[in-house]
Order: sequence, then C-alpha cells, then structure tokens
Amino acid sequence: MLPPSYENLFSYNAMEFYMVSHTLTVGFAIMLAALFYFILTIRTVAPRYRISSVLSVVVMVSAFLILFFQQQSWENAFMWDETQQLFIRDEAALPFSNGYRYLNWLIDVPMLLLQILFIVEITKQRRASLRNWFFFSGSMMIVTGYIGQFYEVSEVVRGEAGEILSYSLAGTPFFIWGAISTLFFFHVLFLIYKIVQEARKELPGNAATVMGTIGVLFFVSWFLYPGAYLMPLWDEGAMSVVGRQITFTVADVASKVIYGILLAYVAQIRSNHDGYVYEEIEGGNEGLEAA
Amino acid sequence: MLPPSYENLFSYNAMEFYMVSHTLTVGFAIMLAALFYFILTIRTVAPRYRISSVLSVVVMVSAFLILFFQQQSWENAFMWDETQQLFIRDEAALPFSNGYRYLNWLIDVPMLLLQILFIVEITKQRRASLRNWFFFSGSMMIVTGYIGQFYEVSEVVRGEAGEILSYSLAGTPFFIWGAISTLFFFHVLFLIYKIVQEARKELPGNAATVMGTIGVLFFVSWFLYPGAYLMPLWDEGAMSVVGRQITFTVADVASKVIYGILLAYVAQIRSNHDGYVYEEIEGGNEGLEAA
Repeated sequence: MLPPSYENLFSYNAMEFYMVSHTLTVGFAIMLAALFYFILTIRTVAPRYRISSVLSVVVMVSAFLILFFQQQSWENAFMWDETQQLFIRDEAALPFSNGYRYLNWLIDVPMLLLQILFIVEITKQRRASLRNWFFFSGSMMIVTGYIGQFYEVSEVVRGEAGEILSYSLAGTPFFIWGAISTLFFFHVLFLIYKIVQEARKELPGNAATVMGTIGVLFFVSWFLYPGAYLMPLWDEGAMSVVGRQITFTVADVASKVIYGILLAYVAQIRSNHDGYVYEEIEGGNEGLEAA
Repeated sequence: MLPPSYENLFSYNAMEFYMVSHTLTVGFAIMLAALFYFILTIRTVAPRYRISSVLSVVVMVSAFLILFFQQQSWENAFMWDETQQLFIRDEAALPFSNGYRYLNWLIDVPMLLLQILFIVEITKQRRASLRNWFFFSGSMMIVTGYIGQFYEVSEVVRGEAGEILSYSLAGTPFFIWGAISTLFFFHVLFLIYKIVQEARKELPGNAATVMGTIGVLFFVSWFLYPGAYLMPLWDEGAMSVVGRQITFTVADVASKVIYGILLAYVAQIRSNHDGYVYEEIEGGNEGLEAA
C-alpha cells in the first residue's frame, strides 16, 4: 500500500519542520496581501484591461486558501517528540497531502493563461481559440500531474511495529503520468512564447520591454513546478520535502503575484497610451471618485 | 439502525480518500474565487441586469459554505489506520453526511432559477408567475430528494463486534421519494426549456447564441444531480463515493459558476445593445463610475 504521500515517510528536526511551516505561512500572507493590492489598483487601468486584475483576484483567493490549508495540514500532521527531539507523524491526525495544491491549480492555471489574452492586442477570434487551448492543455497538464503524484512512493517495506524499513520512489506510473503532463506543459509554454513574441512587436514602447520580462518570468517560474514534482529523485531525504515546499511557494509568488503585477503594469502603460486618465482631477470629480 | 449515509459503509485507501477531500477543497475555493469575480464585474452590465450578478453572489456564499463544511465533515469522519493502510471511520467523530448539501440547495436552486428571469425579455406578470412555479417546484424537488437520501442504505447486517457483514441499498422509500423529486425536476427543466427557446428568438444576435449554450449547460449540469443520487446503484463500492463527490462538484461548478458567468455575458451584450457604456470615459463619468 502507498502511504498518502512522500512527506509522511520522514521525521523532521525543528529547523526542517519550521522552514516548511514558515514558508507556507509567508506564502498565504503574500496571497492575501496581493488580493487587496489587485482590488485597490483596479481603477488605475482603463476598463477594457480591468478583467486582468479581476482574474488576479480570483487567483489570489484560490492560492490563499490552498496555502493556508497546506500550512494547517502540515502543522496538524506532525507532533513534537521530546525524547527523539524530532517532529514525528501524529498517528491520530490526517497525514499531510500535497494533492490539494494540484487540484486547486485547476482554478489558477486557466485564469493565469486567460489573463494575458486581455493585455495583448489580439483579435476576438484568436482570443477564443487560444482560450480554449489554454483551458484544455492547462487542465490536462494538472489532472495528469495530479494522478501521477499519487504514485510518488511506489513501495514501502514495514517492520513488525509498522515502522518504515525501506521505500522506493517513483514507480512507472509516476513517470508515465508525469511525461503526459509534461507534453501539455510544453504546449502551454509554446503558446505563451508565441503570444509574448507577437506582443513585443506590437505593443507601444515600454510595454514591449515589460512584456519581454513577463515572458522570461513565465518560463523560469513555470519550470519550477516540474522541478518540485521530481524533487524526491534528487535528494531522497527530508530536506527534499523542505526544498519542495520552498520551490512551490517561490513559484506560486512569481507565477501568480509578480506576473499579475507586471501584467497590470503593461495595462497601465497601454491605458495611458489609449488616453485613459486616472490621476487628474480637473474638470470634475473623476479623480476623487476613481480612488 | 441505518448508518447515516452510504459513505460510512466503507474504508478508503489513500487515493480514494484524498480524491474526495481534494475535490471538495477545489470546489469551495472555486466558489469563493467566483464570489469575488461576480462582485468585481457587477458594473460591467447595465443597472437593470445587475440583480443577476447579485444572485450569483448569493449562490456563491451558500455553495462555498456547504462545500467547505462537506470537506471538513469528510476529513473529520475518517482517520488513517497505519496497520490496515486505510482510512477508516473515526468512531469518536460525527459520521459523514451528504444531507447538508440537499438542504443548502434550498438557497441555490430558487436563486439560480430566478436569475435567468432578469436576463431574458419577459413581462412583469409572466416573471412573477414563473418565479412562483420555480420556487414551488424547485423547493419540492429538493425537499423530497432530501427525504429520499435518508433511505439510501436500507439494511445493514452487523457482526458481533459491530462490523458490517452485508448491506442492501435503495429500499422502496428511496425510489418513491426519488421519483416524486424527479417529477418536479422535469417541471423545472420544462419551464427552463421554454424560457431559453423564447429568449433565443427574441434576444439580439450573439446573445441568442449564448442563451442556447446556457440551455445546453443547464440540461447537462442538472442531470448530473439525479445521476449522483443514484450512483451507488451503478457501483456498490467505495469508488462510487469518490465518483459521487466529483460529480456533485462538477455539477455545482457548471450549474452555478459557469451558468452565472454566461448569464452575465448575455447581460453585457444586452447592456451594450441598450446603449450602456462601461468602457468610455469621454463626455462624463460613466467610465470611472462603472468600475
């Protein structure tokens, strides 16, 4: 039988345990803080771009909830053992599970991909087609990765008292599902690459430069996710659990928060370029109302 | 004695247990995220259609709460048994119950049905009449289904230690109440069918097409509910519990969130057609106020 996930194979020293807990805590705090940021800055861009900020808010809600529950799940799953001076599995509590993250990405990924389509210059038809591909490949990438992560631990040998004597990682289904997921991942990256390249040619001045940065950020931050999926293969010890949670959280902040802020920045440049005025108050109450 | 529901007859392996838990988690996250979406986009439609977004918000609150409590109820009802490597009933905790859902639909169903009446073109009198029928048949459908689900497990034979030796499913009351519920269900579907057909003739251009999509979405997503009600009859094992929770969640997202987004989209098209301006700022404060 499989244990519910790789994270439950180990005991953790205080530093390892708390690094995970603290990282998840700063993660959900960033998401809630950014949620307010995106709501409060929504009117700095012209109405036609505001849907990008709305989608950032949607992503922040989802990311906040999931990081909050991951943190709670982590803290509940283990207890401090004074004799061993280690955090060990609390048998009475639910084991820690990473799977929550995966399914929650069913919200985030389509939204993050959709978001960029409202910032670049694109025909309605092409937007609809890209949206459908994003929804399809994005969802397939997540669902197949989700199934794969259940097979992270392929075999556990236990002693008489139920203690873990040995385990093997990553059986065949882990790699097959991971490989299928990666195909969809590359499809998404390919579409984003094309969108960013086109946008850099067409957007006015500074917006093109920022769009280039968004492209780089997208590639770097998204590649952290398969890295985290495979992390137990690089280091089979407790430190890979810590490394994975840090990697996931850094990736979440980069691909959701910073990405959203940069998209809003492009929208601001384009809004000014389109003649949208947020800052001025002459000639009426517009400025004040707009706050 | 009957066990409070079918779900409590089984032990679950890690994958089965977590698929339910993860699905419910993504479900309530979607509801909270969509709640923000409907609030933040309310001014993209003319004031006369905004009540539809308000009703979507009402539905999101109700659906968020119920999925959150279903998830908590699921996680509390079972505990990890290290020796069996299974999640088993935690005798000290409340058994899992699906009944929460049913009664909560007393909020959602009338609101979802009412919502569409503010988007289509309809006389005040006809709207009042349809509203009354919707409230009546919608509520009766739920209450009778709610009573029926108590009879899902009709007989349980237990051994000396209280362990379940055998059980039978779906006694006569399960089918009688289910059949009564289905009559009201068909009445609701018939009314919706007529509304959608009329709307497709009368609404301008693209709005008619979207209304057709709403009709299809409505039929497909609403038929998932009786499917979930009957699920134990198709597969008498633990997988039908997983299948049922996934089906309920997919149905909830489709019939509440996607339905609400599409209704708001029809409202946007109609708003533009009526001359409502959200995007422009010249000649007044509309654009700024509209945020």
